Amino acid sequence: MDEDPSTGRFAYAGLDRLIHERARLSVLTSLVAHAKGLGFGDLKHLCGLTDGNLSRHLQVLQEAGLVEIAKGYDRNRPHTLCRISAEGRRRYLDYLAVLEQVVRDAAAAARQDLVEAPRRGLAPA
Amino acid sequence: MDEDPSTGRFAYAGLDRLIHERARLSVLTSLVAHAKGLGFGDLKHLCGLTDGNLSRHLQVLQEAGLVEIAKGYDRNRPHTLCRISAEGRRRYLDYLAVLEQVVRDAAAAARQDLVEAPRRGLAPA
Repeated sequence: MDEDPSTGRFAYAGLDRLIHERARLSVLTSLVAHAKGLGFGDLKHLCGLTDGNLSRHLQVLQEAGLVEIAKGYDRNRPHTLCRISAEGRRRYLDYLAVLEQVVRDAAAAARQDLVEAPRRGLAPA
Repeated sequence: MDEDPSTGRFAYAGLDRLIHERARLSVLTSLVAHAKGLGFGDLKHLCGLTDGNLSRHLQVLQEAGLVEIAKGYDRNRPHTLCRISAEGRRRYLDYLAVLEQVVRDAAAAARQDLVEAPRRGLAPA
């Protein structure tokens, strides 16, 4: 095959849409950073989400097998513990590798752009 | 104010939804990397998008003022040149700063997770 090597150079097919959505990226990053799990309230607080929004995204992530949710009691009060699953951790790390590539490409492009901007007659920032 | 400093720690409110959407992130990264602009065909090729998908996302970006589209002729054939606008470049760089923070948080969390995993009794990868 002699396919042009630039085909899809900026396609980022590995940016898993399930993880890339902003609220779910917040939830998963919080859960990866708290491997023992987080209560619903703490997670809501860290992600700046409403109850309804967090519930909806947790359901999507649970149905996809990325997050495990255990409902129980803490000092006689209902308590929901959310944890990232082994599959969730694996997919998050795969996603992260692509995100790092985007940041590298973008940072390189932005630097190049700063070099070229004066030649295009734009005022420096 | 004595607001808990962890409020919204992982919210990433600066992840501009207009730019974060995967196809539009591809388009804008391609255009930042090619400051002189790209023809429709080259852009489609770099982003791995169909004609319809690219047209739709370009329209969204143009209406938001992030991209400029010039229709003209190149050797008597219709040619569409797409360029990122000054406003688009500014918003892309703001977005990139937040994306870099996500990657730093995520990489730190993933490292922490690797340290803690054996203590949770999980088999090492």
